[in-house]
Amino acid sequence: MWKRGKFFVFICSFQLLFLVLFAIFGEYDLTAKPNAQINESIGGQNEVHHFYPMFQDVHVMMFIGFGFLMTFLKKYGLSSVGENMMLAAFVLQWATIIGGFLHLHDNKFYVTMETLLVSDFASAAVLISMGAMLGKASPLQYIIMAFFEIVLFQVNEWIGLTHFKVADVGGSIFVHVFGAYFGIACSRMLYKKDDMEEAEEKEGSVYHSDHFAMIGTVFLWLFWPSFNSAVAADGDDQLRAIINTYFCLAACCVTTFAVSSLIEKDKFLMEHIQNATLAGGVAIGSMADMDVKLWGAILIGMAAGTLSVLGYKYVGPFLQRRLGIHDTCGVNNLHGMPGIMAALGSVIVTAIATEENYGNSLFGIWSERDPENSNRSAREQAGYQAAALGVTLLIAIVGGCFTGLILRLPVICDPLKAHENFDDTAFWVMPGGYPGEIKTSIEELPEKKNDADHVSKI
Amino acid sequence: MWKRGKFFVFICSFQLLFLVLFAIFGEYDLTAKPNAQINESIGGQNEVHHFYPMFQDVHVMMFIGFGFLMTFLKKYGLSSVGENMMLAAFVLQWATIIGGFLHLHDNKFYVTMETLLVSDFASAAVLISMGAMLGKASPLQYIIMAFFEIVLFQVNEWIGLTHFKVADVGGSIFVHVFGAYFGIACSRMLYKKDDMEEAEEKEGSVYHSDHFAMIGTVFLWLFWPSFNSAVAADGDDQLRAIINTYFCLAACCVTTFAVSSLIEKDKFLMEHIQNATLAGGVAIGSMADMDVKLWGAILIGMAAGTLSVLGYKYVGPFLQRRLGIHDTCGVNNLHGMPGIMAALGSVIVTAIATEENYGNSLFGIWSERDPENSNRSAREQAGYQAAALGVTLLIAIVGGCFTGLILRLPVICDPLKAHENFDDTAFWVMPGGYPGEIKTSIEELPEKKNDADHVSKI
Amino acid sequence: MWKRGKFFVFICSFQLLFLVLFAIFGEYDLTAKPNAQINESIGGQNEVHHFYPMFQDVHVMMFIGFGFLMTFLKKYGLSSVGENMMLAAFVLQWATIIGGFLHLHDNKFYVTMETLLVSDFASAAVLISMGAMLGKASPLQYIIMAFFEIVLFQVNEWIGLTHFKVADVGGSIFVHVFGAYFGIACSRMLYKKDDMEEAEEKEGSVYHSDHFAMIGTVFLWLFWPSFNSAVAADGDDQLRAIINTYFCLAACCVTTFAVSSLIEKDKFLMEHIQNATLAGGVAIGSMADMDVKLWGAILIGMAAGTLSVLGYKYVGPFLQRRLGIHDTCGVNNLHGMPGIMAALGSVIVTAIATEENYGNSLFGIWSERDPENSNRSAREQAGYQAAALGVTLLIAIVGGCFTGLILRLPVICDPLKAHENFDDTAFWVMPGGYPGEIKTSIEELPEKKNDADHVSKI
Repeated sequence: MWKRGKFFVFICSFQLLFLVLFAIFGEYDLTAKPNAQINESIGGQNEVHHFYPMFQDVHVMMFIGFGFLMTFLKKYGLSSVGENMMLAAFVLQWATIIGGFLHLHDNKFYVTMETLLVSDFASAAVLISMGAMLGKASPLQYIIMAFFEIVLFQVNEWIGLTHFKVADVGGSIFVHVFGAYFGIACSRMLYKKDDMEEAEEKEGSVYHSDHFAMIGTVFLWLFWPSFNSAVAADGDDQLRAIINTYFCLAACCVTTFAVSSLIEKDKFLMEHIQNATLAGGVAIGSMADMDVKLWGAILIGMAAGTLSVLGYKYVGPFLQRRLGIHDTCGVNNLHGMPGIMAALGSVIVTAIATEENYGNSLFGIWSERDPENSNRSAREQAGYQAAALGVTLLIAIVGGCFTGLILRLPVICDPLKAHENFDDTAFWVMPGGYPGEIKTSIEELPEKKNDADHVSKI
Repeated sequence: MWKRGKFFVFICSFQLLFLVLFAIFGEYDLTAKPNAQINESIGGQNEVHHFYPMFQDVHVMMFIGFGFLMTFLKKYGLSSVGENMMLAAFVLQWATIIGGFLHLHDNKFYVTMETLLVSDFASAAVLISMGAMLGKASPLQYIIMAFFEIVLFQVNEWIGLTHFKVADVGGSIFVHVFGAYFGIACSRMLYKKDDMEEAEEKEGSVYHSDHFAMIGTVFLWLFWPSFNSAVAADGDDQLRAIINTYFCLAACCVTTFAVSSLIEKDKFLMEHIQNATLAGGVAIGSMADMDVKLWGAILIGMAAGTLSVLGYKYVGPFLQRRLGIHDTCGVNNLHGMPGIMAALGSVIVTAIATEENYGNSLFGIWSERDPENSNRSAREQAGYQAAALGVTLLIAIVGGCFTGLILRLPVICDPLKAHENFDDTAFWVMPGGYPGEIKTSIEELPEKKNDADHVSKI
Repeated sequence: MWKRGKFFVFICSFQLLFLVLFAIFGEYDLTAKPNAQINESIGGQNEVHHFYPMFQDVHVMMFIGFGFLMTFLKKYGLSSVGENMMLAAFVLQWATIIGGFLHLHDNKFYVTMETLLVSDFASAAVLISMGAMLGKASPLQYIIMAFFEIVLFQVNEWIGLTHFKVADVGGSIFVHVFGAYFGIACSRMLYKKDDMEEAEEKEGSVYHSDHFAMIGTVFLWLFWPSFNSAVAADGDDQLRAIINTYFCLAACCVTTFAVSSLIEKDKFLMEHIQNATLAGGVAIGSMADMDVKLWGAILIGMAAGTLSVLGYKYVGPFLQRRLGIHDTCGVNNLHGMPGIMAALGSVIVTAIATEENYGNSLFGIWSERDPENSNRSAREQAGYQAAALGVTLLIAIVGGCFTGLILRLPVICDPLKAHENFDDTAFWVMPGGYPGEIKTSIEELPEKKNDADHVSKI
């Protein structure tokens, strides 16, 4: 099919579209307007002081965290960190637009510090989906996936936050569950058994790529308290979100090492350490600012680490074998199942929340329990939490399947050939020192030597 | 010539000079003095809260960003990240001293949070120049270059900010244009055609060095909003600088991928991704806190990415072939041309700025438009913006040529021999696993095969 | 001995113990409680705004800084960054518990932002000890070491801060000296001369592992001002701690390059650059918020860099040869001797501190000089500073020896066999591309070929 220059034409069209939409609909928020009144300017100052440090932490998670985490593949490192960057930069703009459309005032959407942060959250969902698809899609396919995903992501979040008024401070439902199952559904649509078997050798890591991946893992782990608390209410809520995430992650990390050593015969497996150590951040996400107590945070971390390691060991291979679900980064184990755990946990914690325990924080966390709003009971609110999970799963899976079908269209998307899977050479002008080269040379030497006299030069 | 111990003697002399100058002229600012009054101590607290998070972002850009960006060279990684660190640490002290001399009070200069930040900006200029010279100078030459460059840098900035009262919040004129053309002029003076041809093989990257370089690229990209807004006026100005830089970089990144794929036959080239994605940060720099609108920021980003990729593809090779300008990191494409773009953009935006549009912010951004100061018109101020660009180019190029001539003096600077270019072995006690070793071994294998028939198995 | 599953059983027992202790004794601080009063909630807000950015810097130092600094070993990178993470996550919980027990109120300990930060400091001590032990202990041994070390660490700090009321804002005495000599004592107990000689080849770095290590070095260097100022008093004290550390580190870095080139025949040695550049941060630690003047900070940096490089060159090998002290990362040179330097410096600066010089800050830095407290004289306070150093050395060395003896018990700890030293293969499911594999193949090829018919097996 038409391939030459197609990527350029598509991306430029999208970028020009963004330009036009920002020109027509986009505006600086009052707090960022140049002719701001004194009190608006102070509002701008507060936005920066309040959001900026945590925004930058989240920003690092998106580009360094996800980008390097995915470099574990031995022959796909440039694509991982490079295309992660491209995709996230694409989404920062597109999510601002779509999110803006859902909150138009006088046909304008307004951009401020919090908008930037929220667009970063949206990019997390897409990068998680990219994790499920990693190595099995072209740059153009990632972009087209993101184009559709962001529309559905924003609609789902808008249902959940604006209509259901659900509490999900760390985005476990709207970001992690959505991104994971959208990506998995997409990946299922693209699955070709033979291709995966042929590409199996390339799917692993090498010693150095595991080091690079740890850069991503550790930055994700470190800044997760920022992810879970950045949009929490100022004061005790935000502080509690930080403390809960800190201990939940610490417990999850220790437990991951323990369980990994148990099931890998007293050794650690890098796949577990790079991923399952982070599951605690997801699993506490929806509840991070709730009163789960310190021991609750630790217990959730221990459960999440265990669940995630077992997922990598047993659930992932099962899903691939039985259901044809190939999930390159294991996002079901890191984002999917722990995200569902977070959602179910939030149902329970919401159902037992009383005004006595929470005082002022009650209406801060669940605005609709306030008699001045909907005056929901604890159980009603818990029901909405569960409903948000259900709606999210539905939209993610159906939307992911639909998007996956589009990605299969040869005329638009040029699905990869078998040998292009997990391989930078298909998409990058290659420098020397590519692992395949060295390894092949060394491995092939013995064989080649048999007829070495026929060989003049390799 | 005398070589043994020369580096030690020079560096120690400089460092002792710094010690003496700090002892005679340096003082803590009132806000940092131990016997501070209550309100001075609160001033210290405000300095920390206001500047520290963004200062640390900029700090990371200097040492991790520039340091790792330059590790792309396959055999010069230790020098890149190591000597980058040495040079920046040298400049932090020297720039504080020279900057202090230009703002003496009672024969003392005063150090506070903002001084630390501004010294980091000064180090950016030197590290950009290092990028043009990368691999073609000894550690001593880098240091001597920095010694002269910082004097001229501070004088130029002093002319531009203190006398011309120019708006350049992101330092595109005083940092990027200055550093780029100073370094390019230096590099031109040292250029030896034969040596460069001999060293050509070593000038590229390998697979893993491209990964290390991406650490630098991504951190620079992430923290650029801090670079462009750290010294903006508190409130809406600073917030606008953040928002503009964020969208400009996002658009620049997406466009870079598009244009790279167009001119590289549907593949991406790492050189473009590592560098041109950042050009938006430079190109919006001088205008970051101005009212360029969201679409303006995006348009600037798209233009900068395109300009920078085309620069790497066409301008760089042209300059080397025709003018003998060898620019290792392509700083003309990343800092030079986008910096000029920023300066010219700021001329236009300044010329059309009205009190009606900017309100209170007008005198905050251009202090001399205030009737209580010089009462300049918009066009007069625009003229000063253009003049600052001219003066900067003049001082940078003349100063760079002069400094380059000094760096060629054999008696002081011991210019590199041909085989020492782009090569860590000349300056570092080498560990094993150096890419040359492995590669050579593998490449030489075919020759060895002549007697392979004696080999049964490895 | 019983080995299979032992790690799992131990770690799970510890983690369950943490869960139980947090459940019985742990509480959110009032500022983080959900039913906080307005003023407590504002307290929570202040905690976050005051501590969070610096806390995250310190957090990065612990996990990225120490983790990657230790990846310099060519065959122990997964263990370095992986087990560093495990150990720190273990300590974050355990240090909160033990620190809490020493400050119980009504049988509860309370967790807030500052507690999280202080637990990170505690993890620094353990990670320093891990540096001395690096490559010579199993994961289980590291954990058991940390278990005992944290108890002694917290008791020592409690003596020093709560009883002696010593000034040590950057923790040079309680963190660096303690961690270094505890680890060295431990390492001495485990020393086996023959094993170290057998493992010598594996103790070095390779080209790429030196790059990874620089990620750690540079982040430690950058964020050290946060480490030294995070718990300083708000206002001029904190600002002074930042400024002093910034210049001390800059001078230390430049000096390290100079001295390294002097003693390595005009080349730089990575071991020096990776470590001695950081010694200034330790050496100014105890004095960071004191009135040492700018030139004092620079002088301390120059001295620390010199001392540390000479330590790596002469003291380390001497200690190993004569005293059987094998210190893998050279923590004596980076944390031990510079920490003692900081302590002695603090004795001097404390002894000459007058109310005239310090004004309000005097009682902020040394609370017991306040007539309303103990009304100590400057000399008395200086005596306490010296006493804290003495007590720290005593507890660290005796405690380290005791812990080392426990780590030797075969029935519990399974000390490593000779070939397991400095080797990931003993503890990790190995990916391909391990340096040993490639290197052996390549290096041995030429030699082997000549008499390949005599070779039966590699």
